[in-house]
Amino acid sequence: MSIIIAIDIGGTQIRAGVYRRGSIEPLEVRRTPTQGEGTAFERMCALIQSVWPEHESVEKIVVASPGPLDPETGVIASAPNIPGWENFAIGPELEKRFGVKTRIGNDANLAALGEWRFGAGQGHQHVLYLTISTGIGGGVISDGHLLLGAHGLAAEVGHITVLPDGPICSCGQRGHLETLAAGPAIARFVQEQISSGVESTLKGKEKLTAREISEAAAQGDALSIQALARAGKYIGEALAIFVHLFNPSVVIFGGGVSFSGNFLLDSIKESLEQNVMDKSYIQGLVIANAALGDNSGLMGALALGLLPDN
Amino acid sequence: MSIIIAIDIGGTQIRAGVYRRGSIEPLEVRRTPTQGEGTAFERMCALIQSVWPEHESVEKIVVASPGPLDPETGVIASAPNIPGWENFAIGPELEKRFGVKTRIGNDANLAALGEWRFGAGQGHQHVLYLTISTGIGGGVISDGHLLLGAHGLAAEVGHITVLPDGPICSCGQRGHLETLAAGPAIARFVQEQISSGVESTLKGKEKLTAREISEAAAQGDALSIQALARAGKYIGEALAIFVHLFNPSVVIFGGGVSFSGNFLLDSIKESLEQNVMDKSYIQGLVIANAALGDNSGLMGALALGLLPDN
Repeated sequence: MSIIIAIDIGGTQIRAGVYRRGSIEPLEVRRTPTQGEGTAFERMCALIQSVWPEHESVEKIVVASPGPLDPETGVIASAPNIPGWENFAIGPELEKRFGVKTRIGNDANLAALGEWRFGAGQGHQHVLYLTISTGIGGGVISDGHLLLGAHGLAAEVGHITVLPDGPICSCGQRGHLETLAAGPAIARFVQEQISSGVESTLKGKEKLTAREISEAAAQGDALSIQALARAGKYIGEALAIFVHLFNPSVVIFGGGVSFSGNFLLDSIKESLEQNVMDKSYIQGLVIANAALGDNSGLMGALALGLLPDN
Repeated sequence: MSIIIAIDIGGTQIRAGVYRRGSIEPLEVRRTPTQGEGTAFERMCALIQSVWPEHESVEKIVVASPGPLDPETGVIASAPNIPGWENFAIGPELEKRFGVKTRIGNDANLAALGEWRFGAGQGHQHVLYLTISTGIGGGVISDGHLLLGAHGLAAEVGHITVLPDGPICSCGQRGHLETLAAGPAIARFVQEQISSGVESTLKGKEKLTAREISEAAAQGDALSIQALARAGKYIGEALAIFVHLFNPSVVIFGGGVSFSGNFLLDSIKESLEQNVMDKSYIQGLVIANAALGDNSGLMGALALGLLPDN
């Protein structure tokens, strides 16, 4: 009853961390590529087997997975990077294989839980976590409870309309936050501007990334600064919606784009301030960067594992 | 320890209901005008005194009040209809006066709680309640918890941006749901269209109400039908945001406008369906009219009174 095995399913690798209850330092972390020989599930099982402790009993396996899933049933509706995981009952399958209780959670939701328990959200009871990278996801802690919704689909913070009739989002709808302010949207804006003749130190580069744009902004490239400010404006508008609905005491930014420095963050704060209906929503509101970095998936899974089962 | 006194502060009257634990039928209901002789607080105290049971002990007073307030501290930030109630510590004042525990809640939040416990939300654990009348308010139950946020300011569902650069809202921001789809917005649209030459059976009427427009729509007035469909489109767009964020299993509509019949509701449903990112958000989603009607404030206060104190 003392070991929790946390699994983080990432874009390129699956990681397993072994934690003893009461410690946030893993006894061991191992990984396997997401794509490779055999099925992803078989490789994941082999990974779990490889970290299974010899002399201690495992209490729970907890899986953090991208994509929509149902924490109640343990079914992953679809996992973007793993072909074949459509309506895959990963929870029940792992329970059958290893004979221990298994829980699953959306990776962004669990990152929110991890930041709350172990990271930048410690001491707060109302947390909004946003991760901004190739997509925008997040999670909400309300009065100490992870907000899941009826089927685990809540807190889809990247998919709210910010600009009606705006560009088409990965989900098929128009003008969602994700399609306006995630990394690819920032890069697309810069590329479009360069194509239409705007000067930039990034001119001539192919396949721009948000990181390169952040670096160019830091060196004074006006177009890059403008691109970050534009993304920040949209994020701030969405954030106003979120604070009106969730009234958090802390907002935590994770993901690559959140490390874009002050051009983005200042713009987010300015836009939020302009868009709140009342200053009471931002008085005392803490805005922080995520503290767990690459470990947010494992730590989030650990945090879920530590919650009492219903 | 058996009587709960519920207070509902409305636009024109303050009502007090006396409930015995275990019953939802009030032993007595009395009322006093919101505006009148003496201060509103003194008249409210006299009202409470008048219903105070002679032979039974009062366990709690629970107040449902409009406007922003802090359920933790019992302070009303401002009450739209009661001059002088700015940062008014109504909870502590009532406790001092009557010597019993007092709790307060936003009336729309408490209506959500009441619908969940006693009305159209029974049996659900994830409830979104929207009240659409002169304004738009609401409340959210998530996993059986009323969503309050850090300072009780959550679930301000009327104040989310639906149309950037749209008309100015009562709160000062632009394009909020309330300023596009509440009763006055529906009336304003019809009046503007008539002024610009559009034909309608309502032509020549002054001070149109949403009720008159609903009646005209029922009798086939094309402009009125268009006005309701337009409001429904905006409400559906906002609802898509809400279901992405809260993933409720039931959406309950209260307030006058919700009784506008199928023109509004059909338009809301169509717009919601067009705007969700995935059908899983609306599969099995129940859409219902509020069941408690004018009693939603009292029943909501009762529901809050029945919650265990922290």
